[in-house]
Amino acid sequence: MKNVVEPLKYENGVLKLLDQRVLPLEEVYMTAKTIEDCFRAIQDMVVRGAPLIGFTGIWGLALFLKNNPKVVLPQFEQAAEYLKSARPTAVNLAYEIDRCVEMARSETHLSALYPKLVDHALAEMNNLYEKNLAMAKFAEVELQKIYGDRPLNVMTICNTGTLACGVLGTALGVIVHLNQQKKVKHVFASETRPYLQGSRLTSFELIKEGINHEIVVEGAASYLMKNKMVDAIFAGADRIVENGDTANKVGTSSLSIIAKHYGIPFFIVAPVSSFDLEMKTGDQIEIELRDPNEILKFKGAHIAHPEAKALNPSFDVTDHSCITAILCENGAINPVTPENVRNVAGQK
Amino acid sequence: MKNVVEPLKYENGVLKLLDQRVLPLEEVYMTAKTIEDCFRAIQDMVVRGAPLIGFTGIWGLALFLKNNPKVVLPQFEQAAEYLKSARPTAVNLAYEIDRCVEMARSETHLSALYPKLVDHALAEMNNLYEKNLAMAKFAEVELQKIYGDRPLNVMTICNTGTLACGVLGTALGVIVHLNQQKKVKHVFASETRPYLQGSRLTSFELIKEGINHEIVVEGAASYLMKNKMVDAIFAGADRIVENGDTANKVGTSSLSIIAKHYGIPFFIVAPVSSFDLEMKTGDQIEIELRDPNEILKFKGAHIAHPEAKALNPSFDVTDHSCITAILCENGAINPVTPENVRNVAGQK
Repeated sequence: MKNVVEPLKYENGVLKLLDQRVLPLEEVYMTAKTIEDCFRAIQDMVVRGAPLIGFTGIWGLALFLKNNPKVVLPQFEQAAEYLKSARPTAVNLAYEIDRCVEMARSETHLSALYPKLVDHALAEMNNLYEKNLAMAKFAEVELQKIYGDRPLNVMTICNTGTLACGVLGTALGVIVHLNQQKKVKHVFASETRPYLQGSRLTSFELIKEGINHEIVVEGAASYLMKNKMVDAIFAGADRIVENGDTANKVGTSSLSIIAKHYGIPFFIVAPVSSFDLEMKTGDQIEIELRDPNEILKFKGAHIAHPEAKALNPSFDVTDHSCITAILCENGAINPVTPENVRNVAGQK
Repeated sequence: MKNVVEPLKYENGVLKLLDQRVLPLEEVYMTAKTIEDCFRAIQDMVVRGAPLIGFTGIWGLALFLKNNPKVVLPQFEQAAEYLKSARPTAVNLAYEIDRCVEMARSETHLSALYPKLVDHALAEMNNLYEKNLAMAKFAEVELQKIYGDRPLNVMTICNTGTLACGVLGTALGVIVHLNQQKKVKHVFASETRPYLQGSRLTSFELIKEGINHEIVVEGAASYLMKNKMVDAIFAGADRIVENGDTANKVGTSSLSIIAKHYGIPFFIVAPVSSFDLEMKTGDQIEIELRDPNEILKFKGAHIAHPEAKALNPSFDVTDHSCITAILCENGAINPVTPENVRNVAGQK
């Protein structure tokens, strides 16, 4: 496991977190020596992306034990609750922290837990890397069925790479892996309005990986596909339901419809943990409306008239009929049917 | 003819031009008293939009005659060439100025031309207003066939209103007209990356007209249409060829494909002067690639990494198969076939 971009690294007992708030214009590592440092890094968005926030949670508890070797269980549990409150809606954070608390409860002496938590954090990150790599290899197989071994022009939306996952990543992980196999010719990164994750983060990762790419506005999708400049599209997922309908960054569904119109393969890449098989169709997924100022302002300055209003849905639902295949660590779901979703992603 | 927004007005012998560079945050009129003032207004983008630039050209020559009542034809011709050079690629500007020169050539005494040019400018603006209104009324008929008289939720892209045309406008002109007929419930204005004409200009016009609206990012198109929040879409055109394929602001083609996917009517609104019946299909239209910095920077500040690259096609071609009808001042082209295009738009 080796990343060109390292949003989180543990060196000589010190945690270093790449400050994603100032990317891509500055590359600054924040040194986290205490649980409070990790709390602030999570709360202030130094780290972002569900998996990376979860990993930062484990490291926060490890640092707490390192600094307080004589704590007893109630204190550790209190620290865990404190750390969870840094981002109460982050499911991964709560999940990872709760697992650490379980580990603590089965220890006779908490002093023994510090090295175990360090090992656990490293193992969890390696575990996710292996899952990401598995998805990428399944993607490679799917692409080979269509295109053989020729290098491809691919497109992606939002940021789904190392900066979000701490390791390889999902949709962008596929692209990085394909590039390592010399199978990428050119990447188009959608700038991804309103938060510009494509311009700010995906392009940064592609530069670091030395992958040929250009940023495009979202409206350019039809231009690119009509002119046969895109062979395949990869997107991540926030939630995938039983019939394969997929919630992801707003714009993903638009992209999938345009791809279907031009007959270009459209892939969703996500771990089994992103599947919600209790939900039957995407119609049941609630879409969060975010602050209109993400659209109306840029770095605090008005883009539009001060009285202007905006509607800012953060996500949309991509219909399963517009998805060529969903790739998870268990394999490819192709074609996307409820039966295939259950059979492939249902094996946790 | 009455506009809530007046990008150009002639009051007491003085031309006033709304400075579109500082919209929507400031509303400042520049006073143009000389041909040089008009030259700078055109060159520095105080005025924008092909028709408005053309009108400013006529007024510039009128002011030249007003200030220099004793000029002879060669001096007038020289002034005309000078004014054309303010924006050499603006076809409308050259067209309007050349017509003024023709008028000058048929005058015995140029001193008589000043009031005639004033009348000509006002008549030309009124003439365009009548054409815009005719398109809007044809749009009203098309919508009534589908929806009866109920107020509609509509969507538009870029800016195609008074700020671009000097008068009512094309796609946005339809929306303003429909609103006057109490047939608009809500408008979604695509922000229109990379130049944000939707956020900056269309939203400004809608605020001035008191029309309910929200700005959305381009990626939100599928979200809106899937949730039945849009009844019809209106876009302008830079060029329409014989089979109805239409070049317009990048993103228009994407929007038309998404609309077709959801079965939502998609209309192009453009005057007969935008048709190029010599060209058979849209494949022959050359797409201008603009400065990548429009995507990579915002107000001079980097959005992406300084080494990032971007591809910036300004336009795309909407396939005629994705257009419900094209509305020009001669009528509605519906369905969009080469025969209908020739029959309706061919009558100049």
